[in-house]
Amino acid sequence: MGANPPCASCKLLRRRCGKDCIFAPYFPSDDPHKFALVHKVFGASNVSKMLLELPVHQRADAVSSLVFEAGARVRDPVYGCVGAISHLQNQVSQLKMQLAVAQAEILCIRMQQEEALASLLPLTCF
Amino acid sequence: MGANPPCASCKLLRRRCGKDCIFAPYFPSDDPHKFALVHKVFGASNVSKMLLELPVHQRADAVSSLVFEAGARVRDPVYGCVGAISHLQNQVSQLKMQLAVAQAEILCIRMQQEEALASLLPLTCF
Repeated sequence: MGANPPCASCKLLRRRCGKDCIFAPYFPSDDPHKFALVHKVFGASNVSKMLLELPVHQRADAVSSLVFEAGARVRDPVYGCVGAISHLQNQVSQLKMQLAVAQAEILCIRMQQEEALASLLPLTCF
Repeated sequence: MGANPPCASCKLLRRRCGKDCIFAPYFPSDDPHKFALVHKVFGASNVSKMLLELPVHQRADAVSSLVFEAGARVRDPVYGCVGAISHLQNQVSQLKMQLAVAQAEILCIRMQQEEALASLLPLTCF
């Protein structure tokens, strides 16, 4: 081991953590759970491949999304992230319906208001 | 090869497709792309482990969600499914805001309506 402790990935995989380690910037040694999660769901080799295919400035975001996705899969092994998508899609549908009802109500009240005014105005004119 | 062609997974992994193949019920030979997707993102070994940890009646749903998730990751290597979740969360926030505005408008019109009626009614009584 050098001056720095190996990153969480190299520690778990029991390998030397070199200066060019693809995982080190995103999986610090003090947060072993984060790498364990993505390793369990995607496999270290796949994560490494995915990161290598991305430009450096996008890798931190990719790691965050992979950790989120892996967490969702561990919490819900059947649906993972797709469960959250499905729940949100239902919520969007319900909100669209509620909004349409509210907008129809506004239209309806405005029409009633105009009709009421039209029927009352002649009386107030005389 | 037996009477049946090997499933898409065994074909890609170049292995014998036995009667107890964990992949065969979900990855038919005529749809090789489906397995190639989950293999690329999760790895065949992880997919096999995930399926084995689930009761048989939940495996088809798990495969569908894994295929969906893998497809999202291939289309968007940085955010994958999490991009869709983020988009849907924004949509939910916007719809909630629009709904709140519409409901406030309904309340406001109702109050105006009551005020208008209250000021006109005395005139119509005489």
